Amino acid sequence: MQTVTDLPGGGVAIVEKGILSCCGDIFRNFSSNAKVAVITDETVRGLYFDVVRNSFESCGFSVCDYTVKQGENSKNWSEAGKIASFLARNGFTGGDTVVTLGGGVVGDLGAFAASVYHRGIRLCAMPTTILAAIDSSVGGKTAVNLPEGKNLVGTFWQPALVLCDVSVFGTLGATELAEGMGELCKYSLLTGEKFAVNDLKNAENLTGIIKKCVGFKSKIVKRDVFDKNERRILNLGHTYAHAVEKAGAYAVPHGIAVFYGVKKTIDSCYNNGFMSKAEYLRCSEVIADYPEPTVVLPGDDEIRKYILADKKRNGEQITLALLKGFGKPFLKTMPIREAVELLCR
Amino acid sequence: MQTVTDLPGGGVAIVEKGILSCCGDIFRNFSSNAKVAVITDETVRGLYFDVVRNSFESCGFSVCDYTVKQGENSKNWSEAGKIASFLARNGFTGGDTVVTLGGGVVGDLGAFAASVYHRGIRLCAMPTTILAAIDSSVGGKTAVNLPEGKNLVGTFWQPALVLCDVSVFGTLGATELAEGMGELCKYSLLTGEKFAVNDLKNAENLTGIIKKCVGFKSKIVKRDVFDKNERRILNLGHTYAHAVEKAGAYAVPHGIAVFYGVKKTIDSCYNNGFMSKAEYLRCSEVIADYPEPTVVLPGDDEIRKYILADKKRNGEQITLALLKGFGKPFLKTMPIREAVELLCR
Repeated sequence: MQTVTDLPGGGVAIVEKGILSCCGDIFRNFSSNAKVAVITDETVRGLYFDVVRNSFESCGFSVCDYTVKQGENSKNWSEAGKIASFLARNGFTGGDTVVTLGGGVVGDLGAFAASVYHRGIRLCAMPTTILAAIDSSVGGKTAVNLPEGKNLVGTFWQPALVLCDVSVFGTLGATELAEGMGELCKYSLLTGEKFAVNDLKNAENLTGIIKKCVGFKSKIVKRDVFDKNERRILNLGHTYAHAVEKAGAYAVPHGIAVFYGVKKTIDSCYNNGFMSKAEYLRCSEVIADYPEPTVVLPGDDEIRKYILADKKRNGEQITLALLKGFGKPFLKTMPIREAVELLCR
Repeated sequence: MQTVTDLPGGGVAIVEKGILSCCGDIFRNFSSNAKVAVITDETVRGLYFDVVRNSFESCGFSVCDYTVKQGENSKNWSEAGKIASFLARNGFTGGDTVVTLGGGVVGDLGAFAASVYHRGIRLCAMPTTILAAIDSSVGGKTAVNLPEGKNLVGTFWQPALVLCDVSVFGTLGATELAEGMGELCKYSLLTGEKFAVNDLKNAENLTGIIKKCVGFKSKIVKRDVFDKNERRILNLGHTYAHAVEKAGAYAVPHGIAVFYGVKKTIDSCYNNGFMSKAEYLRCSEVIADYPEPTVVLPGDDEIRKYILADKKRNGEQITLALLKGFGKPFLKTMPIREAVELLCR
């Protein structure tokens, strides 16, 4: 029996082992006899496209696919335009659907294209990394990069359906696993729930953890779809993480930067009196469950410079997501220079 | 004393002679000391950019401008990406504003860029054609063209402010005036109000007409922002018009195609028993007030072909905006082939 999680905007998420092979059956509840465009990357296509196509086609859907090169470089303005043209050439209209099959790059890019083609057509996300499953595929933020920076362009566009097949995470590489760990650590600290991250090979355990993260994020986003208020607590660690990514010319992957950002933020909260020693020890104990990735972090001066240029600043002010304790996030708006001092001292 | 019209999404429109020269003062009510990027075209820049820049700068705003070549060819995916990059290079953040100063091309293109940069920043529209003033600058539809067709990409993004200076319409060319007339004719038939279109040089008369159209459109759009229901009555004549534009490779300008589309739709409504003879004569009398533009229309076979490929079809169905009489629009969903017969017989 499938359990579904309600998403913002009326869609649903289903997290279950093996669900990709029956995606067509599930999708029939949303649309019938329509066209489906699967946006994917070369690696994921080789692994999972056939099973997805077969399921859709056996249920009467007409399937075409658009495959990008693997990696962040594909998430650009020009590629999104090519996807829109691809949809137009294949005669996609308002009743048809874009499916994103892949990690964050494919998810962000394909969702952006879906959100602007005909001013928005139906979106179904099939995340194939833990990071995409618990974060980017839920909440409706789409994005592409500009030459001037990452995620500078995007829209809010909610998926009608998120299908998360936990069995695909078995093929994740070490870096992708470490990235997922970084975001899981963030969710654990935000929700105040300890996750058994030493046992992710156990499908039941992993399914439960992902459901908790998706459920938590959906609940928050529903109350603040456009990221103006409460939703910003989901950015815990992200101001520091984005600066680490930029300062290191994106050599440090996002999820790993988030891990360091979260760790740094906890330290800052304790050092600046926002968090008691008892809570600090509790948070530190949780963080210790997560293997520390081995990457070379950029120097503090570089990180300071990029925090000053953070996309989320509003004029001279920035709002940071901070923690009072385990499961006790809060928002604090301050001058951008104060934020730099807080995070980089 | 300025009268303002409430727009969908909480913005306002002000229609007034000479208002461009005090745009900075008005804008101070929306934002202070922020950055303003004026998106315009070469012709309009020469005529009105200085007065706009001076007004903004004298009120403490920092102004930059991005100027495109005049004409529909500028309204493309790549140009929108260049505008987003321009905003990024100039350090635009969430509190800053895009101003579109121009006709439909600049309005649609600049608004699209504003809607996706940082997932949407503030938009102020300053329409310089009648068509843009009464139609494209109100309602929040943004658009760019793909090589595969016009307006295939876009978003819904409502302007915070629309400033319409009726004195700029004095510099409109004959074609642009004829285009405005086509949309005015549509509004007259939808609202059931006769407009004194023989006296558009009278600023007070023109101001009144534009206010009526803007007010009518805003009222409808507020009830159906995403164009799923009632808003579609604003497409009166547009299915035929879009087919005329495409069949003629866009040699027939949009507003002129709309004029013919509206005329053809009225005839179809009468011939198919949707409209009484008395109402038909009334509508025909209204249409006779509008000078018939002299253009060569494509042949019926060509038009049929392009109605079949209409962007607004949903699978095999299409919803047409029709009229029962003067000021009595209604929607009718039918198989696409029936729509072709209705409009092209």
